[in-house]
Amino acid sequence: MRWQQVENYIKISLGGNNIMAKKRNTTKSKKRNIIVGQSGGPTSVINSSLAGVYKTARERGFHTVYGMLHGVQGLLDERYVDLSTQIHSDMDIELLKRTPSAFLGSCRYKLPEIHEDPEIYERIFNILDKLDIEAFIYIGGNDSMDTIKKLSDYAILKGHTQKFLGVPKTIDNDLALTDHTPGFGSAAKYIAASTKEVIRDALGLTYNKKNISILEIMGRNAGWLTGATALAKTEECDGPDLIYLPEITFDIDQFLKKVNELLKKKDSIVIAVSEGIKLADGRYVCELSGGGDYVDAFGHKQLQGTAAYLASFLGAEIGCKTRSIEFSTLQRSASHMASRVDIDEAFMVGGAAVKAADEGDTGKMVVIDRVSNDPYISAAGIYDVHRIANNEKLVPREWVNKDGTYITDEFINYIEPLIQGDYQPFMVNGLPQHLVINKK
Amino acid sequence: MRWQQVENYIKISLGGNNIMAKKRNTTKSKKRNIIVGQSGGPTSVINSSLAGVYKTARERGFHTVYGMLHGVQGLLDERYVDLSTQIHSDMDIELLKRTPSAFLGSCRYKLPEIHEDPEIYERIFNILDKLDIEAFIYIGGNDSMDTIKKLSDYAILKGHTQKFLGVPKTIDNDLALTDHTPGFGSAAKYIAASTKEVIRDALGLTYNKKNISILEIMGRNAGWLTGATALAKTEECDGPDLIYLPEITFDIDQFLKKVNELLKKKDSIVIAVSEGIKLADGRYVCELSGGGDYVDAFGHKQLQGTAAYLASFLGAEIGCKTRSIEFSTLQRSASHMASRVDIDEAFMVGGAAVKAADEGDTGKMVVIDRVSNDPYISAAGIYDVHRIANNEKLVPREWVNKDGTYITDEFINYIEPLIQGDYQPFMVNGLPQHLVINKK
Repeated sequence: MRWQQVENYIKISLGGNNIMAKKRNTTKSKKRNIIVGQSGGPTSVINSSLAGVYKTARERGFHTVYGMLHGVQGLLDERYVDLSTQIHSDMDIELLKRTPSAFLGSCRYKLPEIHEDPEIYERIFNILDKLDIEAFIYIGGNDSMDTIKKLSDYAILKGHTQKFLGVPKTIDNDLALTDHTPGFGSAAKYIAASTKEVIRDALGLTYNKKNISILEIMGRNAGWLTGATALAKTEECDGPDLIYLPEITFDIDQFLKKVNELLKKKDSIVIAVSEGIKLADGRYVCELSGGGDYVDAFGHKQLQGTAAYLASFLGAEIGCKTRSIEFSTLQRSASHMASRVDIDEAFMVGGAAVKAADEGDTGKMVVIDRVSNDPYISAAGIYDVHRIANNEKLVPREWVNKDGTYITDEFINYIEPLIQGDYQPFMVNGLPQHLVINKK
Repeated sequence: MRWQQVENYIKISLGGNNIMAKKRNTTKSKKRNIIVGQSGGPTSVINSSLAGVYKTARERGFHTVYGMLHGVQGLLDERYVDLSTQIHSDMDIELLKRTPSAFLGSCRYKLPEIHEDPEIYERIFNILDKLDIEAFIYIGGNDSMDTIKKLSDYAILKGHTQKFLGVPKTIDNDLALTDHTPGFGSAAKYIAASTKEVIRDALGLTYNKKNISILEIMGRNAGWLTGATALAKTEECDGPDLIYLPEITFDIDQFLKKVNELLKKKDSIVIAVSEGIKLADGRYVCELSGGGDYVDAFGHKQLQGTAAYLASFLGAEIGCKTRSIEFSTLQRSASHMASRVDIDEAFMVGGAAVKAADEGDTGKMVVIDRVSNDPYISAAGIYDVHRIANNEKLVPREWVNKDGTYITDEFINYIEPLIQGDYQPFMVNGLPQHLVINKK
């Protein structure tokens, strides 16, 4: 399944090491500066996109590359750095590619509609003008693409010349129109590797008794990451026994029946559930245990406790040992298990956004197009951000089996290329080293 | 601090690649066979000890190397394999060293006292005689060393000639008389690396608001692993802000006061707590949330929910965002982040046990002695198992700061050498490959 045909490919090679840089012969006296920000939840590779922006901006002759500290929210407080004071060498760029979580700091900040608060837009553009910004690059998810849309709309409305480009980022893989999102492959790889380890752990301890392990995976509405646990099914591992995605209504009676059937055949059962699975009446499963109270700035309920609830439910119903395991924030920050394909693509889309802005595009998001699945080849494309913002891409129903308890081979074929390869972490004194910002 | 002077060093080089093998010139007509089992909770490197046993046994001329399936419990059901049907090459040995969780399967089985049930001892020795077993090697923790003690006592009582040797294994590092236990260094490394990643994750999201992350670390009575979170304090990471070990009585009022003080100075607070922290009245903190109900075969309460309880407590008291993170079973099975020192030492003690048994020792456990800290040099020694079994080694009070909220530099100096170096996982199709048993 191809998600879309991109409007235009951006000719940037994967890995970004030989980006076709063209320094523009500009006769303008004004400095050509660029600013980049990061927004929303972290990923393992969000900084690889930042590295791609920085390297490509320097190669294409931008004068100063600014970084917003904590996205648009920090920019409004005039908090930014000149990235040349932070990134001193190619070695730093490599380290940045291996550093999880937003190097510049992130925010969860939603711009008001233009008519609601034009003053805030004026403030942003005043800052951009003051810094001689020609291009504004924002690395983020759905909410961040909404920011790109509003700022580019405002610029056109008011005749500002800055270009606004979005770089996709989310472990959830729920952005429309891109084949997949940077950050997803690495989260999938960490989840799959950890699932294999949890399955082995549970198996080793099972003799003449039953045990059930329930893994809780991130993904509020989209089951992409929960489905990735199926990658643990390899020649030497059975993989999880049941997989429940948030796209499918969760039926707790059917669930219990399924588990009881499985227990007749094997002693150690491993079940992967999305944090966002819901009952037919619309309640989240985690709400049954009293979770789901906290609501974030975008009105999203914080979901935690789905696996814990189901483990205690099964423990009480069946009477065997159960255990719940949440992979928690490590899903989005375990860069020590990042995918090389993902790091390379994140770098590529960062560079492609700079190229597009430099060539006059605005109000667009860079997307990844899957040119070929086997051998896996991807390319950066570009799409109108108005067609992207605020649409969630869910797992298609036909990629889940009939009774909603596992994923299909098509799903596996889609994910598998995205977890391939590694960048060895740079180990210092036994631990992965990261690049951190110096705000002095 | 040196834990002990070992009784005798066993001359086996670290890494085991040039174990000084001497095939005994035996004139006995009886086959010289050996059997090995694994018991108790898994570690990332318990199979490296198995690899050390297997390789050394072959090198020293043992005929068949049997593996008990699921330890003594499986042996009583006559469940075992000839390991030459499982390990076919040096490549398999390397893969085994990188495979977490007991390859042979584990058990949690406690032998009765000899006078309570002599028949069970008769059954075990009948099986050993039938298999022409000369040496019995058991890889495990405190409970497993109790098995070695009882079986070797019984053999001496009844005039059986088999030798019984213990190989230490536990992520908890709570075995007495050995400088540290195989499995601890890799768990410490995984915990420290994950703590760094969690700290970065939380930092990136903090702007003009406070957040608190609470990490729950394994360790019922001993705080070795919880203390290992301090390794995350490096040149580019602050490390956790507070560390609470189970050795120190937990005072929830003092805790709240400490957190409030910290929040005046910084926005993102990360706190590491042991799952086993207890109040002055003896209750586990996790019991406050209704956890701690399940009791295992050794009478140990299952502890889960300490961090979740404290996160909701702080959330209610302070009103900021809190998050709890349990590293769960990945602490003991994330072999993709194992320490090279640990894998090598686990191999070494496995080999040393075979050598000791072959040279006539029985009722002993192999220990690791720290010959030098800088440069780090360790050697295998041997100790009477009667002096080891059922004593828990706790973190010394002087290795925790005065108010019980952090560890000292001596603790760090002790741990740091144990997390050094890596064995690259063997990656197949993007995921770490494991060796699994073929029971057919």
